[in-house]
Amino acid sequence: MRIARVVTTTNEICWGRMIDERTLNPLRGDLFSAHEFRNEVVEAREFLAPVDPPNIFAIGLNYRRHAEEQNAPLPERPLIFIKATTARQHPGRPIVLPRSAPNEVDFEAELAIVIGRSVKNVSEADAFSAVLGYTCANDVSARDCQKKLDKQWARGKSFDTFCPLGPWIVTRDSLDPDACPISTRVNGETLQQSNTNDLIFSCRMLISYLSHQFTLLPGTVILTGTPEGVGMFRNPPRYLRPGDRVEVEVGGIGVLANTVASED
Amino acid sequence: MRIARVVTTTNEICWGRMIDERTLNPLRGDLFSAHEFRNEVVEAREFLAPVDPPNIFAIGLNYRRHAEEQNAPLPERPLIFIKATTARQHPGRPIVLPRSAPNEVDFEAELAIVIGRSVKNVSEADAFSAVLGYTCANDVSARDCQKKLDKQWARGKSFDTFCPLGPWIVTRDSLDPDACPISTRVNGETLQQSNTNDLIFSCRMLISYLSHQFTLLPGTVILTGTPEGVGMFRNPPRYLRPGDRVEVEVGGIGVLANTVASED
Repeated sequence: MRIARVVTTTNEICWGRMIDERTLNPLRGDLFSAHEFRNEVVEAREFLAPVDPPNIFAIGLNYRRHAEEQNAPLPERPLIFIKATTARQHPGRPIVLPRSAPNEVDFEAELAIVIGRSVKNVSEADAFSAVLGYTCANDVSARDCQKKLDKQWARGKSFDTFCPLGPWIVTRDSLDPDACPISTRVNGETLQQSNTNDLIFSCRMLISYLSHQFTLLPGTVILTGTPEGVGMFRNPPRYLRPGDRVEVEVGGIGVLANTVASED
Repeated sequence: MRIARVVTTTNEICWGRMIDERTLNPLRGDLFSAHEFRNEVVEAREFLAPVDPPNIFAIGLNYRRHAEEQNAPLPERPLIFIKATTARQHPGRPIVLPRSAPNEVDFEAELAIVIGRSVKNVSEADAFSAVLGYTCANDVSARDCQKKLDKQWARGKSFDTFCPLGPWIVTRDSLDPDACPISTRVNGETLQQSNTNDLIFSCRMLISYLSHQFTLLPGTVILTGTPEGVGMFRNPPRYLRPGDRVEVEVGGIGVLANTVASED
């Protein structure tokens, strides 16, 4: 099943179960507790980020070949960082190059896990019971802040619009998250192309590990890491420029497309 | 004016304007937009964290003498990190030593700024117009995670209960945030004692700087840094143990007190 949050052709915002890529049965109730899908059919004018996460947890260095491209040793445990919730951006809306760091903004295709119920200390065996589903994410990163200017990654990973999510959620029964093709295209050119089977720490492990540190609330998003091919490690580097169109595709989910714009 | 969120003696949760340290005029409406305080008087049974922040931004190394105690050069720009929103804890409730890192949990007394309206790219001159008020915070930190085990501070700073806030908000007209005595007592012994006039980056500067990176939403909390005297740099180190009572006091605001407990 695919669940989307859309602006309808009658200008209402609602969640719904997708019938096809334009029409939905709208949700009545709460996405994270009691709800049902109505028989009524609404038409989507625009897709929104499918959730407003209470926290965005992200994992660095979680694909083997991405670790190799930067000669980094494989991590002993997941490298956790946090993106500000205000970084969340909708599909189709621009990634804005921030005035304070416009020059080294990079793309990172990621599979995102959307948590469905509040969970703490969950085992790997039970981890998927906490999942609502999966979506695509772009873990946009200002490399100058991340690698040169700042002591922590917080700023470089959290500028407004630096976390596009969408275009919809594929529910957990409909996807094997550890075997998805994943790719990035910029202006049609494929720059990242891998598969989540190259993950160092699996989705099950990440959910369990994170839940042993933090309570994962409904709507929490976990970005599972990016494969090789990011702009920073290309020769020459390939950073995002105003007018670029970035597409993150996860096989079995869909395509998350965003343009790139200057702050002013 | 002091604004608190309380559980009343009739078991209702509400915000209110404090009359004294036990009674309030309850708020009707939205704390961050249209509201008024009713003439009715309610009695507080328990004080809660005064807000549920959409983001918690925190600043490292922001007191001169705290930089000196660790022989760290003064930072060129604010060192930003992010605490998970799930770290928020109420006054009087326990700081829980996490099972995965119970041994080097440290206290950090901080002045916390509570943002009152959505703001982006605000100047230093206008920065205080974005402020609702100020409260006390304890930026609890698992030093083993922060300094030895992890590449980023995210986990060590964000375990559940690692961000006590309260006991109430003093509104911006009632406090000069750059001239407040600030201290920590553990079991009655004073371990930190300083003044926010030792801040490297002032409150005005921090609000303006952060707003040039991120949209600051209503309820956003900014932890402004901790002075010298934290447990890690004492000889011998003084980490928190089950049964400890930690009090963070900011002059002009009040005392934020929490006990310490094991996870199980």
